[in-house]
Order: sequence, then C-alpha cells, then structure tokens
Amino acid sequence: VRAAVLAATLAELAAVGYAALTVEDVARRAGVHKTTIYRRWQDRDRLILDALTDHVAAEVPMPDTGTIEGDLLELARALVRWLQSTAGQAVIATMVSGVWQQPEIAEMRRRFYADRFQRAEPMIVRAIARGELPAGTNPAALIKAMIAPIYLRLLVTAEPIDEVTADQAATMALAAARAGVLGSRGVEESRSREGETARRLDG
Amino acid sequence: VRAAVLAATLAELAAVGYAALTVEDVARRAGVHKTTIYRRWQDRDRLILDALTDHVAAEVPMPDTGTIEGDLLELARALVRWLQSTAGQAVIATMVSGVWQQPEIAEMRRRFYADRFQRAEPMIVRAIARGELPAGTNPAALIKAMIAPIYLRLLVTAEPIDEVTADQAATMALAAARAGVLGSRGVEESRSREGETARRLDG
Repeated sequence: VRAAVLAATLAELAAVGYAALTVEDVARRAGVHKTTIYRRWQDRDRLILDALTDHVAAEVPMPDTGTIEGDLLELARALVRWLQSTAGQAVIATMVSGVWQQPEIAEMRRRFYADRFQRAEPMIVRAIARGELPAGTNPAALIKAMIAPIYLRLLVTAEPIDEVTADQAATMALAAARAGVLGSRGVEESRSREGETARRLDG
Repeated sequence: VRAAVLAATLAELAAVGYAALTVEDVARRAGVHKTTIYRRWQDRDRLILDALTDHVAAEVPMPDTGTIEGDLLELARALVRWLQSTAGQAVIATMVSGVWQQPEIAEMRRRFYADRFQRAEPMIVRAIARGELPAGTNPAALIKAMIAPIYLRLLVTAEPIDEVTADQAATMALAAARAGVLGSRGVEESRSREGETARRLDG
C-alpha cells in the first residue's frame, strides 16, 4: 500500500502540481480509501514529503564508486538527470510557483535536505578515511556546494543544465572541500545564528 | 527623468510585484507621461531590466580593495545585504511567484547576469595580474560560484542568509578559483551545448 500511495502522490504532483494536489485524488489514483492515507501520513504535506524523499533517494542514490571524485560526479549527473525528469520538473515548477516560500513548505524543504545530507555522510566519511578529503569536511556543506551551481542555473540565471553542468559542479565542490573550506566549524557558526534570521526570512 | 522613472519602477516593483507592475503606475509615480516611458524603454520588461541593472550596479558595486579575497568578501556581503533589502525581497518574491520561468523573463535574467559578469571582469583581471588567481579564470564562473550558495539557501534549502553565509560563499568561490577549476575552457564547452537544451528548459 505504501509504495502505491507514494507512486500515486508523485504522479499527481507531476500532473497537477503541488498547490492543486489533493489527498482525495491520490487515494483515487492509488485505489485506496483516503482515511488509509490520513491514518498513515496525517496530512497532505507529510505525504508529499515522504513521496519526494523516497523518490529522490531511489533516483539520486548516494554512490560508492571507490573515490570521492567518482562519487561526486555520479551524484551530480544523477541529480541533473532527475531534475530533467517529469518528477524533477514538477518539483522545479513547485519551487517557482509561489507556494514554495510558505513557512510550512520551508519546514518540509529543511526536512527533505536534512535527510539528503544524512544520506551523504557515509560517502564523506569514506573519503576522509581514504585520505581524499580533510578531516572535518562537513557532508551538508559539500553537498550544498555541489548542488548550488546546478540550482543557480535553473532558478536564477536561466541557463540550461546538462552533464557538463554536473561535472563542473562536482569538480568545484571537490576543489573547495580539498582546500579545507567546507569544514564543520564555519557551518556550526552559521547554524548558531539561524534562530535569529529564520523567522524574518520565512515569515 | 531617467533616474526618476527607474526609481519609480523599483518602488512599484517593491510595492505590487513584477506581475502587477504597469507602465501607467510607474508614470504616475514618476510624474511623467507614459509615452515618455515607452519612447525610451519600448516595453515594460526593458524598463524593469534597466531599473534592476542600474539599482544592483549601485547597491552591489564591484569592489576594488586591493586583494581578490577582500573584493569577494565585500561583494558577497553587499549581495546578502541587498537581498535582505526591500528591493531585493521584491526580486526574490518575483523569482518564486510563478512568472519567473516565462521565456521573456528568462531572456531578461540572462541579460541582467551578462551585465553583472561583465562588470566583474576588471576585478578578476586585476587578481590575475597580481598573481592571486590562475590565468584564464572565468569572471562569470567565479561570480556564479560565489552567488550560488547564497541563492541555494534562499530558494532551495530554506535557510537564512547572513554575513557568515556571505563569507563562506566568498571563501568557497576563491578556493575553487585558486584550484584552477573556474577556468574558461569548461565554461566554453558548456556554452556550446546551450542551444540544444535552452529551448526545452525555457519553453
């Protein structure tokens, strides 16, 4: 049941978008009663978060190629391929649709990325153990450094993305990590100030 | 007249947003006739592009501190301050309002960033002449590397931005540039493929 409901949620997201998605339509598409969905996921946003988290974990898995360079290249390429897929395009459309900045969505986004950064941790731990990255390299900082130029092109500068974009993003993040500027200290400092500004920016 | 019209355009943008902005309202606010505006700017989008380009050039000027590190830190901090200003918030709101992905806006965005990258060029040329950056460092690639993590926090991961964000972004871009991964070759390769994918992503 869980897999059918999550697949139906993604299909609805791609078909009608985040704003118009209803639990009723997901239930109809999955062939279950909507109370089944509410019992398991409580609300629409938790359902969508679960569907996206699961889907991205499957479509953009954390690689284990034997080198951090290989891992980052594979991860960046998988992300670009996913962003070009129907589901990825639906998520991008949601990002720019006007609902993305609502506080409850901001919370969903944070939880989604917290999950992604946690999944990336073993990859970074292995790279540090192999002596490829400085000790203390922060997994979240490294993943963000890698995905940032890809989303910049999509959301800000209006440039196309392709495999070259992915490779440049991976290469840049790796260079920054090797230079030791993606350590844990800077990230912790930044985190300590978040309480202060988070309300203003999300509200 | 030009300064008054551009100031009125920014004020309207902040007040009503991109979608609702009209040349009539800008004319009324600036105390000029709307034909004066159409004669000079042809259409609404060119007016907005000119207003934003001018405004950002003034509010986020390209620094000349004597070192590339100082320049990038100052530039990143000025960008973060501007993004937190009324005008910056209006632009961010436009980015996520649903109109941002229209092809004519995509063209505006490209022209805006082409102007920014061109303005950044002397800063990079000086840094290369001082031996601080590898020859061939691409100004657009460096500026994009620096702004990418800031926009990622704003638009994707829903994290607050502050001076620490700015300093981390500048430090990361500098590390990547010093490692020689922001050279001109990769960027040109990427550009040659743009024709192929630009239509699909903007359309």
